[in-house]
Amino acid sequence: MHPSIEVGVLGATGMVGQHFVKFLAGHPWFKLTWVGASDRSAGKKYNEATSWRLGGTMPEGVANLTVEECKPGNAPKLVFSATDASVATEIEQTFAKAGHSVVSNSRNHRMEADVPLLVPEINPGHLQVLAAQKAKRGWSGQIVTNPNCSTIVLTMGLAPLKPFGIQRTIVTTLQAISGAGYPGVPSMDITANVVPYIGMEEEKMECETQKILGEFTNGSFHAHPMGVSAHCNRVPVIDGHTVTISVDLASDPSEADMIDAFNNYRSLPQERNLPSAPKQPVIYMTERDRPQPRRDVERENGMAVFTGRLRKCPVLDYKFIALGHNTVRGAAGAAVLNAELMYSEGLLG
Amino acid sequence: MHPSIEVGVLGATGMVGQHFVKFLAGHPWFKLTWVGASDRSAGKKYNEATSWRLGGTMPEGVANLTVEECKPGNAPKLVFSATDASVATEIEQTFAKAGHSVVSNSRNHRMEADVPLLVPEINPGHLQVLAAQKAKRGWSGQIVTNPNCSTIVLTMGLAPLKPFGIQRTIVTTLQAISGAGYPGVPSMDITANVVPYIGMEEEKMECETQKILGEFTNGSFHAHPMGVSAHCNRVPVIDGHTVTISVDLASDPSEADMIDAFNNYRSLPQERNLPSAPKQPVIYMTERDRPQPRRDVERENGMAVFTGRLRKCPVLDYKFIALGHNTVRGAAGAAVLNAELMYSEGLLG
Amino acid sequence: MHPSIEVGVLGATGMVGQHFVKFLAGHPWFKLTWVGASDRSAGKKYNEATSWRLGGTMPEGVANLTVEECKPGNAPKLVFSATDASVATEIEQTFAKAGHSVVSNSRNHRMEADVPLLVPEINPGHLQVLAAQKAKRGWSGQIVTNPNCSTIVLTMGLAPLKPFGIQRTIVTTLQAISGAGYPGVPSMDITANVVPYIGMEEEKMECETQKILGEFTNGSFHAHPMGVSAHCNRVPVIDGHTVTISVDLASDPSEADMIDAFNNYRSLPQERNLPSAPKQPVIYMTERDRPQPRRDVERENGMAVFTGRLRKCPVLDYKFIALGHNTVRGAAGAAVLNAELMYSEGLLG
Amino acid sequence: MHPSIEVGVLGATGMVGQHFVKFLAGHPWFKLTWVGASDRSAGKKYNEATSWRLGGTMPEGVANLTVEECKPGNAPKLVFSATDASVATEIEQTFAKAGHSVVSNSRNHRMEADVPLLVPEINPGHLQVLAAQKAKRGWSGQIVTNPNCSTIVLTMGLAPLKPFGIQRTIVTTLQAISGAGYPGVPSMDITANVVPYIGMEEEKMECETQKILGEFTNGSFHAHPMGVSAHCNRVPVIDGHTVTISVDLASDPSEADMIDAFNNYRSLPQERNLPSAPKQPVIYMTERDRPQPRRDVERENGMAVFTGRLRKCPVLDYKFIALGHNTVRGAAGAAVLNAELMYSEGLLG
Repeated sequence: MHPSIEVGVLGATGMVGQHFVKFLAGHPWFKLTWVGASDRSAGKKYNEATSWRLGGTMPEGVANLTVEECKPGNAPKLVFSATDASVATEIEQTFAKAGHSVVSNSRNHRMEADVPLLVPEINPGHLQVLAAQKAKRGWSGQIVTNPNCSTIVLTMGLAPLKPFGIQRTIVTTLQAISGAGYPGVPSMDITANVVPYIGMEEEKMECETQKILGEFTNGSFHAHPMGVSAHCNRVPVIDGHTVTISVDLASDPSEADMIDAFNNYRSLPQERNLPSAPKQPVIYMTERDRPQPRRDVERENGMAVFTGRLRKCPVLDYKFIALGHNTVRGAAGAAVLNAELMYSEGLLG
Repeated sequence: MHPSIEVGVLGATGMVGQHFVKFLAGHPWFKLTWVGASDRSAGKKYNEATSWRLGGTMPEGVANLTVEECKPGNAPKLVFSATDASVATEIEQTFAKAGHSVVSNSRNHRMEADVPLLVPEINPGHLQVLAAQKAKRGWSGQIVTNPNCSTIVLTMGLAPLKPFGIQRTIVTTLQAISGAGYPGVPSMDITANVVPYIGMEEEKMECETQKILGEFTNGSFHAHPMGVSAHCNRVPVIDGHTVTISVDLASDPSEADMIDAFNNYRSLPQERNLPSAPKQPVIYMTERDRPQPRRDVERENGMAVFTGRLRKCPVLDYKFIALGHNTVRGAAGAAVLNAELMYSEGLLG
Repeated sequence: MHPSIEVGVLGATGMVGQHFVKFLAGHPWFKLTWVGASDRSAGKKYNEATSWRLGGTMPEGVANLTVEECKPGNAPKLVFSATDASVATEIEQTFAKAGHSVVSNSRNHRMEADVPLLVPEINPGHLQVLAAQKAKRGWSGQIVTNPNCSTIVLTMGLAPLKPFGIQRTIVTTLQAISGAGYPGVPSMDITANVVPYIGMEEEKMECETQKILGEFTNGSFHAHPMGVSAHCNRVPVIDGHTVTISVDLASDPSEADMIDAFNNYRSLPQERNLPSAPKQPVIYMTERDRPQPRRDVERENGMAVFTGRLRKCPVLDYKFIALGHNTVRGAAGAAVLNAELMYSEGLLG
Repeated sequence: MHPSIEVGVLGATGMVGQHFVKFLAGHPWFKLTWVGASDRSAGKKYNEATSWRLGGTMPEGVANLTVEECKPGNAPKLVFSATDASVATEIEQTFAKAGHSVVSNSRNHRMEADVPLLVPEINPGHLQVLAAQKAKRGWSGQIVTNPNCSTIVLTMGLAPLKPFGIQRTIVTTLQAISGAGYPGVPSMDITANVVPYIGMEEEKMECETQKILGEFTNGSFHAHPMGVSAHCNRVPVIDGHTVTISVDLASDPSEADMIDAFNNYRSLPQERNLPSAPKQPVIYMTERDRPQPRRDVERENGMAVFTGRLRKCPVLDYKFIALGHNTVRGAAGAAVLNAELMYSEGLLG
């Protein structure tokens, strides 16, 4: 028996919103019945208000929904937020105050001391903070966030190594253009080029990683005591962020230990068989030139992270690469999996 | 008064050879009068034997040269080697034995204990080994090499920092497709993709860097005592290798010290005003999203290396990026500058 | 009740062969039990003999098949041919002689007077020639071919207009790199470039189109009496050939007539509900900038052809664009649909 | 003795304006002393007001110019207009009224009955209309325009064939992203894709071509009586529009006649040796897969048009391809050459 839960998407007409609409199509638990967007779109049918930018065509069920303003009103209790950072703070808080569970992909609340920055496989225990969040803020609803798209690839690649004692990591990203939304990166900037800068991305990766891999104990978050240094770059790839990772570990695992750790990594979402959870969340590829974004990113419905090329690092201990789907595992899929975990924890009322 | 020196190119019909032909067109000292290639091409006119793959058209002077076999015979005393690694060892040694100065872009002799791996700005003193090379091998000629195309970008980016005591560096490359020659990388592999592996490239970067930045003292090379860890990737860029660099330094320079070190770096090629030497070999760009391969790689005739985005590294001391033209500064131009330095040192007899 | 038919693939390890393997995975009628390739691969497991170049991973069932030589021996009665043109003539004829039905994607037999160049929606009646083929050649088996990948997009775009009397057409193709196989087009040739030439492609489009749209009457093929002029170009697109089409018609349909003709086009494969037949084989898109290869080519399992931008042509009568998946509808999927039609006609005996 | 003429650029900070700034750097006749832009930029130094998007760095002379509002005031008599179509009509007319010669790249006045749509090689006689323009409009200044970037490639490819009697042409363009300015085409739209639509481009090509190839007789323009049908597409190319052309001719030239016509085409700009005039304005390439945008577009300083692949067309008479640099020959360089012709005609007063 599946639950049947009505959900809404805030910011549904934008690029991230479209990814939510696409990812939710056919979801076994969540039924998209409500779409919110700016005043300009409100009142129109979704297919009139939206220039569909993704591959294929708009899912049928949503085309005829009437776009609402991003105000609680008649919205379902569970809403996914794809709102722009410039308005997300106010909109999300308004919904939480009005009793909604806001599962957000926006960056605004990620680093708040009472908001989970949730990756269901890594830190499901961080949901414990929600009681304090509601109490302190006087909300009947709640806000949960997922990480930045490059952070999630890095943290999923590192999480299996946590038992070995992660001490320091230096990473370089090669990030897909879809991470910048639409219109996003001008083609004159990125065609046959590399743009070695993404605004605020390195800062986000560095602090979000410490929070995600950290613990929630004694009523507060404790950042994982590790050094993180990120070099972030845009490359002409459609979907899929590749990250090169050098890592320093406290213990001295063998290469076989490391690969086993990747392949055997399982957590709550797998145990509970959550609908969007990949059966194997981290997949180590043995081909010497894989994973590759164009060839691997769509596997496992975009929800697994792929690692490869593990070898000794002459400066730190090991080096390897990780790849994940930035608009699925790094955005819409991440939020939906967060909501699935919350439901399975009894946190969606 | 310019010298006027006849030169040849070994492997002239291939992609690297074509880069030599293009770079030498109009050179004030060196006149290309001889082109060598495989038996299959020998006897044909250069323009009949060669499918010109570079932009624009073949330089006029060379089109009617008759392609020779790669045997000393009537070749000029100075030859540039663009031969394939599978045959370079024998061909280059045959020429050196026959009294030719072989200025090679091939990898075969780079790590030999009596062969300079020369970057004129960095280690002109390494040419001292040539006397021993000739004596030991019984050659009346000599072999000098230039580094791998990604190594030269890294070492030019690091060399200005040597006074600060380079101890360790972790780098990730985003390398252009032209680095793989022709036909090189299949478009099915690299279009809208990243290939996170380049055969033997990481090994080359790690060992060549130590040799280049090291000293030649007491009759032998002493590798620079530094850790080098490289992650090498192919990206869909035409020309220009980008390298992200984190570096650990013995001293504690300020950011201003670092930038001054980049911009004020000068060496023998600049002092002697060698024809292919960039006036400023390392140029620090202050725009937050530069250098970029497509926009910057052709500046300074492709012979400068561009750095940018200097900032503190949370794990090592500093991080920044470097960019250089892989087929010019990293191949044909490197070798030609090597020959210019050798001439200015009186080593071309 | 589905039939269950064992099938083989000739040339299974190459790029086209891999497309067959992928397309056949999970096919309701055809079970891939036999893979043939060159002597070099014979005797190995398929996954050892094959560098899998397509997205994702090799279908599980095929990985452990032992690669056979391309000789009839124990091969199933139905074989798909993905063999290279240099060997296809001999191999295919050997199989046909030995009683196999060879459903070929190779170009070798397409224009033979006794071989169907089959597009199931357009010319199912061309299968009538098989009786004569077998009789004349003394074969117990038979050979059926599908068109070149760009031809099929053009003919599927034109077929619905046949009732209006197609007299002349001038077309320009913008063809994907996957059409050239692997390694295929060097990235140095096509990155940020157009290559305005594809060997023999224009000739194939011009003659194949006339045969496909023509009739089989009185025991022989009669080419459709129309002028076809093709300009063929390679562009940096992964999958999907786009064709701009200007067409001269004998009658004077309205734009609405034309669009209805596209959208209402149905034929035998739809009537018989063949497993690989698209429900609507030609889909007219109304967005002014569609179809687009990257966004539309994967729809309908790659088996539909998309048209769009119908408008008056100031020189001929109408102009529009057509798009189809070159490695699915234009290759592996085309052949499999051919075999499905043959089965439904009782020709696989 | 060169003339020395001060010039200004209207809309100098935008992408097209930057192309003017770049093209004018080092011009032997024209010295850029004045730059105009929107109110927002006025008062700043050019290098502060401008995000330089082109390759390399901003030409030195212009960096310190103070940006002016686009009002006549102290502007030089000769101004190039790179203003946006939304404001070009008013700005250009204001300047013309105030006595300036406005040499415009904007589309606004191109099809006016008293404005030359000038291509110096093709229709220098169209400048005769200027007397009537000034008289009718009561201007002491004047406006001259150059064609749309794709039109100029087509017309330069067709002009040499005019003696054979051009009757009809069907063309398909493969247009570079730089033609759309900055930010222009989103990378999410064009990476590994084709966009088969460019707003108003087909209409412009069809009517501008007829005007350019037409005559100015008896005081008015007479469009060339030919049918033109254009299919316009955007492809992932940086610079250079490729056009496939099928053409119907009144006479019956041989292929050799056609190729001679291309290569021997010369006109006023060549006779007068105007500084920006290519020595050979149309260059027929004999390689079977050329011209190609990435490899050929920068030749001849971007001012020549390249043709190739001439062959019989099965529907019209001949087919071939043409390639030209859209931001040079198709924009900034076109306007500068127009001004050079005007000076040589004594029209810059």
